Amino acid sequence: MRPSSSPSDGLLGGLSGAPDVDAELSDQALLQAMLDVEAALARAAADAGIVPVSAAEAIVEQCRAERYDPAALGRAADATGNPVVPLVGELTAAVPEHARAWVHCGATSQDVLDTALVLVAVRALGPLLAHLDGAVDAAARLAHAHRDTVMVARTLGQQAAPSTFGLKAAGWLTGLVQARDRLRQVRAAQPAQLGGAVGTLAAFGPAGAEVIERFAAHLGLPPSPLPWHTRRQPWLDLAAALGGLLVAAGKIALDVGLLAQNEVGEVAEGGAGRGGSSAMPHKRNPVDSILVTAAARRGPGLVATLFAAAVQEHERAAGGWHAEWEPLLDLLHLTGGATARCARMLTGLQVRPERMRENLDATGGLLLAEAVAARLAPAVGRRVAHDLVTRAAAEPSFRAALLADPEVRAHLSDTDLAEALDPYRWLGSAGRFVDRALAAVRGAGG
Amino acid sequence: MRPSSSPSDGLLGGLSGAPDVDAELSDQALLQAMLDVEAALARAAADAGIVPVSAAEAIVEQCRAERYDPAALGRAADATGNPVVPLVGELTAAVPEHARAWVHCGATSQDVLDTALVLVAVRALGPLLAHLDGAVDAAARLAHAHRDTVMVARTLGQQAAPSTFGLKAAGWLTGLVQARDRLRQVRAAQPAQLGGAVGTLAAFGPAGAEVIERFAAHLGLPPSPLPWHTRRQPWLDLAAALGGLLVAAGKIALDVGLLAQNEVGEVAEGGAGRGGSSAMPHKRNPVDSILVTAAARRGPGLVATLFAAAVQEHERAAGGWHAEWEPLLDLLHLTGGATARCARMLTGLQVRPERMRENLDATGGLLLAEAVAARLAPAVGRRVAHDLVTRAAAEPSFRAALLADPEVRAHLSDTDLAEALDPYRWLGSAGRFVDRALAAVRGAGG
Amino acid sequence: MRPSSSPSDGLLGGLSGAPDVDAELSDQALLQAMLDVEAALARAAADAGIVPVSAAEAIVEQCRAERYDPAALGRAADATGNPVVPLVGELTAAVPEHARAWVHCGATSQDVLDTALVLVAVRALGPLLAHLDGAVDAAARLAHAHRDTVMVARTLGQQAAPSTFGLKAAGWLTGLVQARDRLRQVRAAQPAQLGGAVGTLAAFGPAGAEVIERFAAHLGLPPSPLPWHTRRQPWLDLAAALGGLLVAAGKIALDVGLLAQNEVGEVAEGGAGRGGSSAMPHKRNPVDSILVTAAARRGPGLVATLFAAAVQEHERAAGGWHAEWEPLLDLLHLTGGATARCARMLTGLQVRPERMRENLDATGGLLLAEAVAARLAPAVGRRVAHDLVTRAAAEPSFRAALLADPEVRAHLSDTDLAEALDPYRWLGSAGRFVDRALAAVRGAGG
Amino acid sequence: MRPSSSPSDGLLGGLSGAPDVDAELSDQALLQAMLDVEAALARAAADAGIVPVSAAEAIVEQCRAERYDPAALGRAADATGNPVVPLVGELTAAVPEHARAWVHCGATSQDVLDTALVLVAVRALGPLLAHLDGAVDAAARLAHAHRDTVMVARTLGQQAAPSTFGLKAAGWLTGLVQARDRLRQVRAAQPAQLGGAVGTLAAFGPAGAEVIERFAAHLGLPPSPLPWHTRRQPWLDLAAALGGLLVAAGKIALDVGLLAQNEVGEVAEGGAGRGGSSAMPHKRNPVDSILVTAAARRGPGLVATLFAAAVQEHERAAGGWHAEWEPLLDLLHLTGGATARCARMLTGLQVRPERMRENLDATGGLLLAEAVAARLAPAVGRRVAHDLVTRAAAEPSFRAALLADPEVRAHLSDTDLAEALDPYRWLGSAGRFVDRALAAVRGAGG
Repeated sequence: MRPSSSPSDGLLGGLSGAPDVDAELSDQALLQAMLDVEAALARAAADAGIVPVSAAEAIVEQCRAERYDPAALGRAADATGNPVVPLVGELTAAVPEHARAWVHCGATSQDVLDTALVLVAVRALGPLLAHLDGAVDAAARLAHAHRDTVMVARTLGQQAAPSTFGLKAAGWLTGLVQARDRLRQVRAAQPAQLGGAVGTLAAFGPAGAEVIERFAAHLGLPPSPLPWHTRRQPWLDLAAALGGLLVAAGKIALDVGLLAQNEVGEVAEGGAGRGGSSAMPHKRNPVDSILVTAAARRGPGLVATLFAAAVQEHERAAGGWHAEWEPLLDLLHLTGGATARCARMLTGLQVRPERMRENLDATGGLLLAEAVAARLAPAVGRRVAHDLVTRAAAEPSFRAALLADPEVRAHLSDTDLAEALDPYRWLGSAGRFVDRALAAVRGAGG
Repeated sequence: MRPSSSPSDGLLGGLSGAPDVDAELSDQALLQAMLDVEAALARAAADAGIVPVSAAEAIVEQCRAERYDPAALGRAADATGNPVVPLVGELTAAVPEHARAWVHCGATSQDVLDTALVLVAVRALGPLLAHLDGAVDAAARLAHAHRDTVMVARTLGQQAAPSTFGLKAAGWLTGLVQARDRLRQVRAAQPAQLGGAVGTLAAFGPAGAEVIERFAAHLGLPPSPLPWHTRRQPWLDLAAALGGLLVAAGKIALDVGLLAQNEVGEVAEGGAGRGGSSAMPHKRNPVDSILVTAAARRGPGLVATLFAAAVQEHERAAGGWHAEWEPLLDLLHLTGGATARCARMLTGLQVRPERMRENLDATGGLLLAEAVAARLAPAVGRRVAHDLVTRAAAEPSFRAALLADPEVRAHLSDTDLAEALDPYRWLGSAGRFVDRALAAVRGAGG
Repeated sequence: MRPSSSPSDGLLGGLSGAPDVDAELSDQALLQAMLDVEAALARAAADAGIVPVSAAEAIVEQCRAERYDPAALGRAADATGNPVVPLVGELTAAVPEHARAWVHCGATSQDVLDTALVLVAVRALGPLLAHLDGAVDAAARLAHAHRDTVMVARTLGQQAAPSTFGLKAAGWLTGLVQARDRLRQVRAAQPAQLGGAVGTLAAFGPAGAEVIERFAAHLGLPPSPLPWHTRRQPWLDLAAALGGLLVAAGKIALDVGLLAQNEVGEVAEGGAGRGGSSAMPHKRNPVDSILVTAAARRGPGLVATLFAAAVQEHERAAGGWHAEWEPLLDLLHLTGGATARCARMLTGLQVRPERMRENLDATGGLLLAEAVAARLAPAVGRRVAHDLVTRAAAEPSFRAALLADPEVRAHLSDTDLAEALDPYRWLGSAGRFVDRALAAVRGAGG
Repeated sequence: MRPSSSPSDGLLGGLSGAPDVDAELSDQALLQAMLDVEAALARAAADAGIVPVSAAEAIVEQCRAERYDPAALGRAADATGNPVVPLVGELTAAVPEHARAWVHCGATSQDVLDTALVLVAVRALGPLLAHLDGAVDAAARLAHAHRDTVMVARTLGQQAAPSTFGLKAAGWLTGLVQARDRLRQVRAAQPAQLGGAVGTLAAFGPAGAEVIERFAAHLGLPPSPLPWHTRRQPWLDLAAALGGLLVAAGKIALDVGLLAQNEVGEVAEGGAGRGGSSAMPHKRNPVDSILVTAAARRGPGLVATLFAAAVQEHERAAGGWHAEWEPLLDLLHLTGGATARCARMLTGLQVRPERMRENLDATGGLLLAEAVAARLAPAVGRRVAHDLVTRAAAEPSFRAALLADPEVRAHLSDTDLAEALDPYRWLGSAGRFVDRALAAVRGAGG
């Protein structure tokens, strides 16, 4: 038996996460991060002349995760409510006598766990952002390749007017790039936490500010001007950025799922051997779309939990802080899985321009009613043009009705009508928008 | 590296969960539940004459979790989006040739996973409800023992008027009992799921209804009149009941935490050696209160996720279903931990009647202003009584001001005033409410 | 300028609400409910001999909403944090001298506002449940009328196998009926609140329990054995029931929206003149489906808010209570609108059996692969049958491939094959499930 | 009867909102914003030579909210699902014949409503940010005035060690300033929306990009490189920033509420005549703290709703978009009210340094155990020092036990001990942190 937050980790967890991101979120990784914090603390205090250098070195020497048992620490944590207290106990026991008094010097449990979770988040964002780069690249390739592939745009669930698959992909791309911008910014700003028992760093006397600087530098993190024990904006920023990425990926997955419906058939997920159904041999499920959609449904609840937890009283909170740990890891886990799957989905996406064209043409030009009206307007006025078009649109065949309508034909030749009903001539700024989206991602160093 | 939903299971998961509940939520437990479902399916189909008895027996024989590797199944699940497909593959490979064609007969993956999660929930609710019974008993003991222990009631964050600790405990008790009622009801109503590929049970021909009955009976679950593949009320009910229990436990934890503040000091958590602080030897943190509070902060997000996931399209959903699995387990896990800790917190609670009395008396009888006014009213009218009391309440000592006020003394003797300022005489229905709460729990067979 | 929670009430509020339900949620309605509570309190206290009958009558006389100005009360509420204090002030001023001292006798603001909100909820559930009855009836009519209308069932976003539109409607029906059961139960159990300042009813002396009974009886509500000032299970139950109804309605709306896609075209919303688009004359948006879907997206956040607010400290809470008022009204408002629109959507739904059949046939019998395999299995074994079918399914035309396959033809005649490929013969228990759903709603007195 | 989202706007809405912010969120304000958008569209299209200047001028002339009836528009909106369609109808009817065809030229309903909601948000953020500036100023004044006011820091619900009220206020200040930074940034980046029916701006032909620029410029908003009809990052950013401000304000309110408890008594809300209780004349409720706490509890649900709504399919969404309108306004409303109340609460806050000192001293120096150990350590080693202090801490009087302990006295003189037990000497970097926080706000041009 193994206690855990989401207890089924092997059977189900792989479907919501990605292996490389999850590796950075494991017990082993968190434990190592906690030890990295203790090591950086010892070094920083030694830099400031508070801890003897030899003691710091002895402490650093023992800060290796493989020497400790996460499960045992977890069990021991029940008595104090966090795993730092038992870890400090074991670390103290592990170092030589002369160094013992200097272990965890001047710090509080929350300093260690907050900074460790920041480290874990920053490290997990490494592979996560690599997946995101992959998704961005794939979306850019689709936008470029299909800049001029016409398809029907759908609004409020219904076919509306011509657009291009390139513009759709450019929208996906822009969503991913915006989410990436925010995530990069947030990652760079995740601060080290060091405040001591009550946020005054009393044990460091006048050296507090120096220790903070050194501590953060040893960890490669920005220092925080003040401790943020009960001021959780850094994690709200992180939660919002991860939640935003889940939205961006979820939007793509939703579109892919809808476009992959049999009756639409405009895209299919790639990947031989994926998506099979045990009961129905003919069926091919868009698995990545499905799993990204599932992740996106779970995002808002986790974002809300982190905002709800962030209202924390006094100098260090009784419960609000504890409520953050697992949801933060969970959100990284979920976003990691969704991003990896989104990248795979986009990379392998099979696009079917011929089905796009078929669906566009299925209503016999009706989707170009606005275009026909625009052609007629200079001659008959916009009002009359609109009425003529509406009348034709009510007939079984829009095109035939137009061809047969003397009022229309008085102003539009066969060629005029053919041009008006040509979707390529009613794409407005679609191509330009695609170019802009592609230029933006190139500019962003994507 | 081990992919997982909340990747840190050993270090942190024990602080949000309870070992015995978590054991029922483990990979091993879920896998066994899935196999129990396959076994019940084989048996039920054999009962209905669809599957040969020998094949069913051969299948049942292989439905033992220790024969399969959850991690390997989890990895294989990536191709199809759920772990049932690879499990069915392995089970099929494990049974003798003659039985292979009958494995998973007539069912769809969702039948297996939904029913398995129902089994897991029902099983996890065993130890969870045992903890809840413990919490109920402890609350009842507190209500009974302190039926007449006066303390100050606090409203809107401020001292308000006398009440009893027994009434507070009776409120806790009633909250727990109501949550238990809902949870018991919900547990009994969690249905087996069996609908086949699209909810018609086509593969069973006319025998569908019979197979459903038998299948549910083999699992000890109620059958569902119709498949509930995209009608998720059973899990909404479960989510609401678990969320409600987290609220009930969270309310108690919040009260305990506030009463345990140094400046209040009316209760303390028991448990020698618990709640120590590494940096501050004098400190004793109310660890169970803190961790239950943390769990309660996380409840609403999980409840919301299950409601958000429940809007599921068509016959089986693309994403909504997948979004339910881990949050459902997480909610059981969190509620298990919170309930166990709530039981421990209540069982060991140290109550300090003398501090309760001190805090009640600290404002010199001011909290009984309403009682004094009520004594004066028959003589001078409610309006004048209220004014006299308000005047005295503005003086440094309320009691002294009353004693010195000739208008007051014209109507109230020393004895009258002493009685009016006696909190025991201004408890209204407190005792009766306690008795009712205790009677209700006895009636509930608690 | 008019302060308000969701400030745009006229322009946008009608799109999320229903007029008749909203009428019960208006300021005027809430104000009247608060006055009804004050009147019931006076009557109950007179029944118990605490308040003179003439005073009670004088109070009751003034308990008419049109005599007070909600906006002025709202502004005055800022000083005390709730509107009851100023209302009691105005009511006291309005009654004759002899009755003034008896206004609001023994109660606290929360008694009045909690009970008033219960009254408002119960009253709003009147028209809401009428809309729900309408939705139930319409769903039942659809299930009955289309019991045997074949259509393709879709799972994981893909066409899967034959089913009936009747079964789909039966699923909708069952979802609505289950939600209605919960809502009816919850409505009947919403208790009156009466606890006085701190939940002891001190001001009533030994008569507290009697006053509670009388008070509740005057309001037509069940009494609560204990005050529930900080035990909010009644509103958690209400939130969950309303949230569940939003899920049930949202599922229907989602299905309708997907079935109404141009490429699917199996249903359309009725209602001449509805769903038009200004820019695109050909377009017909499924407006009710869209607005119900929108409401369903908002449900989980409101449910979560009510669960988050429900963790309330001490005897009456500082903030948790105040956080409930508007979300509770909002949830009633949203559910009212969604239910009314769901009823209208179902009542006017245009069902197109011919498009259903077309879509079912579009893959040339492929959706009946399982049926063909089942026919072959008795002769060649399930394994071989599955392989034969899978082979044929890979060909351009499934039916042609089967007809051309000598191994298949060795066991299946033309008639056999035609029967196997007949969707009507592969519906399993669909009809029976429809009958059960219809029987259940008849049994429920719907 | 008046349909509305949160139907009780007068009685309750003032307790969650602020009048000046709410004025910008009213129907009238939203309607004017929609008309401002139509006017800007006409002007921009005229700039680009698409619409005749005289037509544009005629349209602009009619874009005044007082000419239209929001309630009537709201009712008419039911047929199409948004209020833009009827507004365009009325605007068209209002302009002279020659201009009619140019009303709403090239735009879609969502262009108008999205941009109008952006305008409303930007305008509402005017008074909201003014309140926030007031709160920042007040927090800065408190931090400055109480830079050296000692008080006890509390962690995990318990008294922990000395700190200053200035540091606490500096933390509040920093939280508010960080939230303000994000909100200012987000406000400046809220883009105009213009994409036409499907996001291609087809009706503008090659002039689309120019019209977008002009349109945005007329409204004083940044243009969006691509339409963001189904890419909702701007509103996710806004939601997160507003939610973050609610957290920052909620943290302050929580602290104030806890410090204002009778047993703590370190602060009180100012404001004569506020916070009174009808039943208990002696009681003074911290009303602003309570109402800000209530708002903070509601924030996460609204943030989650906006994230949940943001997953939007295709080119314009069926439901996701509609789900955003009221929650966005609600969140602005709630944050406006919480910010105004937070400013008032901080401005009038009564701080009681003498109670702070009393509470700090109540445990007889125990809170300085760590300081005494630090004094002893150079002489006896950290380990022994810790043991000596722990031994003394177990005695009834910590100070007396230290004075009586020969091992302690061997190393610490009376003066040494007095200094070690002086909280002013154990404040570490508290003063420096206060200075930093004050410098940051000065730097931010606050």
